[in-house]
Amino acid sequence: MNTFGRLFRVTTWGESHGPAVGCVVDGCPSNLEITRQEIQSELDRRRPGQSDITTQRAEEDQVEILSGIFEDKTLGTPVAMMVRNNDADPSKYRELLNKPRPGHADLTWRMKFGHVDYRGGGRSSARETVGRVAAAAIAKKLLLRHKIQVVAYAKRIGNIESDETLSSPMKGVQDLIESNPARALDIRKGALMTEAVKDAMKAGDSIGGIIECVAFDIPAGLGEPVFGKINSDLAAALASIPAAKGVEFGLGFKTASMRGSEVNDEFLFESGKVRTKTNNSGGVLGGMTNGMPLVVRVAFKPTASIRKRQHTVDLEHGKNATVQIEGRHDPCIIPRAVPVVEAMMNLVIADHMLLSGHIPRMLK
Amino acid sequence: MNTFGRLFRVTTWGESHGPAVGCVVDGCPSNLEITRQEIQSELDRRRPGQSDITTQRAEEDQVEILSGIFEDKTLGTPVAMMVRNNDADPSKYRELLNKPRPGHADLTWRMKFGHVDYRGGGRSSARETVGRVAAAAIAKKLLLRHKIQVVAYAKRIGNIESDETLSSPMKGVQDLIESNPARALDIRKGALMTEAVKDAMKAGDSIGGIIECVAFDIPAGLGEPVFGKINSDLAAALASIPAAKGVEFGLGFKTASMRGSEVNDEFLFESGKVRTKTNNSGGVLGGMTNGMPLVVRVAFKPTASIRKRQHTVDLEHGKNATVQIEGRHDPCIIPRAVPVVEAMMNLVIADHMLLSGHIPRMLK
Amino acid sequence: MNTFGRLFRVTTWGESHGPAVGCVVDGCPSNLEITRQEIQSELDRRRPGQSDITTQRAEEDQVEILSGIFEDKTLGTPVAMMVRNNDADPSKYRELLNKPRPGHADLTWRMKFGHVDYRGGGRSSARETVGRVAAAAIAKKLLLRHKIQVVAYAKRIGNIESDETLSSPMKGVQDLIESNPARALDIRKGALMTEAVKDAMKAGDSIGGIIECVAFDIPAGLGEPVFGKINSDLAAALASIPAAKGVEFGLGFKTASMRGSEVNDEFLFESGKVRTKTNNSGGVLGGMTNGMPLVVRVAFKPTASIRKRQHTVDLEHGKNATVQIEGRHDPCIIPRAVPVVEAMMNLVIADHMLLSGHIPRMLK
Amino acid sequence: MNTFGRLFRVTTWGESHGPAVGCVVDGCPSNLEITRQEIQSELDRRRPGQSDITTQRAEEDQVEILSGIFEDKTLGTPVAMMVRNNDADPSKYRELLNKPRPGHADLTWRMKFGHVDYRGGGRSSARETVGRVAAAAIAKKLLLRHKIQVVAYAKRIGNIESDETLSSPMKGVQDLIESNPARALDIRKGALMTEAVKDAMKAGDSIGGIIECVAFDIPAGLGEPVFGKINSDLAAALASIPAAKGVEFGLGFKTASMRGSEVNDEFLFESGKVRTKTNNSGGVLGGMTNGMPLVVRVAFKPTASIRKRQHTVDLEHGKNATVQIEGRHDPCIIPRAVPVVEAMMNLVIADHMLLSGHIPRMLK
Repeated sequence: MNTFGRLFRVTTWGESHGPAVGCVVDGCPSNLEITRQEIQSELDRRRPGQSDITTQRAEEDQVEILSGIFEDKTLGTPVAMMVRNNDADPSKYRELLNKPRPGHADLTWRMKFGHVDYRGGGRSSARETVGRVAAAAIAKKLLLRHKIQVVAYAKRIGNIESDETLSSPMKGVQDLIESNPARALDIRKGALMTEAVKDAMKAGDSIGGIIECVAFDIPAGLGEPVFGKINSDLAAALASIPAAKGVEFGLGFKTASMRGSEVNDEFLFESGKVRTKTNNSGGVLGGMTNGMPLVVRVAFKPTASIRKRQHTVDLEHGKNATVQIEGRHDPCIIPRAVPVVEAMMNLVIADHMLLSGHIPRMLK
Repeated sequence: MNTFGRLFRVTTWGESHGPAVGCVVDGCPSNLEITRQEIQSELDRRRPGQSDITTQRAEEDQVEILSGIFEDKTLGTPVAMMVRNNDADPSKYRELLNKPRPGHADLTWRMKFGHVDYRGGGRSSARETVGRVAAAAIAKKLLLRHKIQVVAYAKRIGNIESDETLSSPMKGVQDLIESNPARALDIRKGALMTEAVKDAMKAGDSIGGIIECVAFDIPAGLGEPVFGKINSDLAAALASIPAAKGVEFGLGFKTASMRGSEVNDEFLFESGKVRTKTNNSGGVLGGMTNGMPLVVRVAFKPTASIRKRQHTVDLEHGKNATVQIEGRHDPCIIPRAVPVVEAMMNLVIADHMLLSGHIPRMLK
Repeated sequence: MNTFGRLFRVTTWGESHGPAVGCVVDGCPSNLEITRQEIQSELDRRRPGQSDITTQRAEEDQVEILSGIFEDKTLGTPVAMMVRNNDADPSKYRELLNKPRPGHADLTWRMKFGHVDYRGGGRSSARETVGRVAAAAIAKKLLLRHKIQVVAYAKRIGNIESDETLSSPMKGVQDLIESNPARALDIRKGALMTEAVKDAMKAGDSIGGIIECVAFDIPAGLGEPVFGKINSDLAAALASIPAAKGVEFGLGFKTASMRGSEVNDEFLFESGKVRTKTNNSGGVLGGMTNGMPLVVRVAFKPTASIRKRQHTVDLEHGKNATVQIEGRHDPCIIPRAVPVVEAMMNLVIADHMLLSGHIPRMLK
Repeated sequence: MNTFGRLFRVTTWGESHGPAVGCVVDGCPSNLEITRQEIQSELDRRRPGQSDITTQRAEEDQVEILSGIFEDKTLGTPVAMMVRNNDADPSKYRELLNKPRPGHADLTWRMKFGHVDYRGGGRSSARETVGRVAAAAIAKKLLLRHKIQVVAYAKRIGNIESDETLSSPMKGVQDLIESNPARALDIRKGALMTEAVKDAMKAGDSIGGIIECVAFDIPAGLGEPVFGKINSDLAAALASIPAAKGVEFGLGFKTASMRGSEVNDEFLFESGKVRTKTNNSGGVLGGMTNGMPLVVRVAFKPTASIRKRQHTVDLEHGKNATVQIEGRHDPCIIPRAVPVVEAMMNLVIADHMLLSGHIPRMLK
């Protein structure tokens, strides 16, 4: 089950400390202009070691395109891409082989598969998302032809939350977000978020957060009732990101305390087009986009890897034990998860643009 | 896209005021003993008109089994089931044909499909969930063979929230929940929830809420990395329920403000088996079940249909307008959504029990 | 696995002597005009008892549309259809419960499912194809909007083979085929085929044959490399028809004895369009249609049910035995399989017309 | 649509003269012991340049395993494999850019995708089957644990046909087949087949043939009615091989001329097990295996690339033209297609062994 999507299908592969990680993108229309550099740029955003609040694992993450693109244009055939794992340092993981790390997938993977590549979490490592980001770089390029723009940013880290939700695709917003290590939309709050991460680091601990993602200029009517609703597909896509613990749309969980008259978005004509006065629904009505910005939030738990000593079990000797995790880890997943959330959003929207016929099989 | 599941596959069909609604269940193992009455019992739980806080549409919702079950045992062939729509009263909907109801799917469906059965929301009506509940009655029976029990209840309605989370499948809990109109786990809070619904009704308004669902005795290792994670499949399943606006697992959104040392569930041996001290993860680690209870919450917005006059557009005359909704509606979706949340949970778990090989294709 | 198709998806359900048989068509575009009568007409063609060389089981096969069509136009929602089984006479089958009929699926179904509806073959009966034909009536209507026409006919029964292959969609050809009980294209050969069937009947035996199916005015480029090739999908579709033992395209098996210079279809311009001089490929090149007529043949074995006494096993007593099959059976499947072959061809082409974007999700 | 299979899923990627070709195998159970060499051995069988009747393109076809296998055992994660294209010589193809080769996919691909990697047929080249063979090496190993053995061989080339069908998995049969360039089962006939190929070569022509494939020790009950029948899945799999024009099971097309009493395989008890006296059905009854050897034949047309000058169109100048194909080509596809037919058969059976639960998700 390593494939995502219905018509725009992405298969990712690779273990954290194996030879390489990568993906195959199947179903991308032919004739899409795209360069290796455009894909590389997206990978550079999720690459480790970008700031002092991310892991220091040194990976260049240079992508190699193996098929599907010829003379900088897609062929309509599978696009295979690969990134070699260079800074794999498995030595630190040997001790963990029989001591599952709390909050990690070590134990469940072992129960499911028996034989596990324990080095750095193997396939359960967030390194797997390299393939997703590479694939989504193609989806992003495809959507830009239709002016669809997806922007994600840190909404909350620990107790620091920004009230601001991006309401229009303002120029330079991407640079603004990239300019602060926390990847907040609100620079001032971003500085506080960065402090919160550093505080957690100092304590040998980690910290959670929320990413908000907004998509602009989505045509109305994307989403397939009743089991391929746009929010259903997005929920699946976002919940599949490592450490995600919750997903909500528009006002989300807040609507549980509200009344219909407060939540319903009333319709009105504006310049001859129907829109809604408010966007409490987050751009989704009955599982389909309504033409308003699509607004999603994803909650991420604190990184499971912490320096603090924790209780666990020793599977080899069948007794309780403790474990202290070394290695290089992100103290907070939020900054590096921003491009991954964006990636999943781009993938889902691209898939639905194909499903709905807005994007043809062969581009002109 | 009206099919859900990989091996245990459910296709639902039917419009709210068409001849019938129903489903086809494909992939259920053969030799499962099940009677029409067992399926009917589940439908009775979601049937309208059960209390004074639900819609008064009078539907007997009698299920007819058309195939796949012979001599009260499944054949391994598709189980087709049908419920006739009897109390369809489309007259009230004619006015709404060109005036999309705020918060409803009227407009998005019209934009996507052009031709719409406007009567009672057509296929976007929650009446579609009849098929899901009938299908899930089979999944439930299948899971009971493995002692897996799924229990859902109202966690919150409006401002009334119960702190209690069901921690073990205590005897009689289902009756307890069914005994109060709000379907709360905590009867006293349930009474307050019922009041909150009545207050909203009096105000010609509606109200939102949260349903919590817990599954017990799930084997460890259910869930398929990386795009068929159990939480990913559940998120898709639950987000597909009409009016759902958010899904979270375990501590969910709360983890965003927490530190790793607070959130990580430490492992220990207990009677020779590995379990976790706490269950902050809600029974999911790395996209797989870890053997602890699976805990999910779904936020539902207030019912979109309210008696209060609202602004909308008149599509026929291309101008702004207002609309007042008559018809019979639930002022709060929570009580009747409880069996639907349970249904989706049962369907996902049954599918993964097949995928993982815990349930064979032919039962003995 | 009772669902066929990628975007135009058909799920069939039902046992031969259960309450009903039927289908759900998911993914049909909205706004397609279609009446119940148009679907009924197709079912009438496959109905039993049409001539003296078909089974005398008396089934009216009246279809009821349960959803997805409103005011004689599709809604884009699942179209559920049902045909009640009226003339189910299971009494003749009791003896066969423990004596698997040679050439039938009785034994394999029993081995796979344990619990089997033995009455009339249950789900393995060709009665299942009622659902396919009803579904394909919708596909056919959809294709007719694009002037795509699919015609099938008996090519061979026993030793009588017609050399003629329909090369253009001549007017009245459908009536011509329907006018002779064998459903041959060549009336004179059809009469001989009918005789061959009657000879087999008289001998208490059955007889096999070949159906040829041609599709006209297919756009070039249908078919998805490398695992969704048009011939691959057609082969799967046609091989799924009960009693099918082989499928071939264009010159098919004959090409095994030929040289490239004889088989290659040379290209030329004709009225400004590229076509091929010959159509040895049967309209398929590299898994895609090339704009020439699509030509397929399916070999059917003789009906397994014969009056002659045959050797079998007695599963109840664990010993060898003999069996004599009563009941009402087609002595040759060819005449009634003609509309089924056509149905599968229409379904596959409709699916690929959607996949390729030739048919939009919402018709104008 | 470059993915095949339901639970054992293979995605292939790569163009003939691009950087590499390869595959991703998803769904293989964990704990399967397999070495790189075992995979390499299968690739060596399909490698070009093995005899004087195959193409002289010099490719070492060395496979690199990129993920999914750790310490020579599968992890249950995707197995990514890659083979670099070394002897790509695109110069010969420039002329063909605008002159589609008769019998090739050049034109249809161009019509479908617009932008095509014209070098050596790009993705429509049989070089794509490298990925299939590598993937199937894993399936083969998996099946050998259950003693399931799949053997393919040349049944016919041109007018030389061997009557012999392998009826039991005799020791050394694989070596016997590999020992003659035609890969016939019958060495004497194999020599005549080789002559037939050489005759065609001398004439600047090519020649077609038939491959027979038999699978032994298949458990009864594989195959999913009604649209996942074992013969349906095999037909799709085999028809997807480049140049395949027909597929048949057991007596196949011959049954069209026969009577039921001749074709039906009567049942009998033999050493306490039910088997059939004859195997006219080729091991398939009602879409499921019956425990007898599975017998399939695939017809291949003559290689489309021939040295003889042929008529075609000049798309650049919009006029008729001729073309003469240079480059290195197999004069007959049969010998090198033998391992590909075997590969597809292994893939389908492995998939159904998982679907039916015969093979668990985690091997012991």
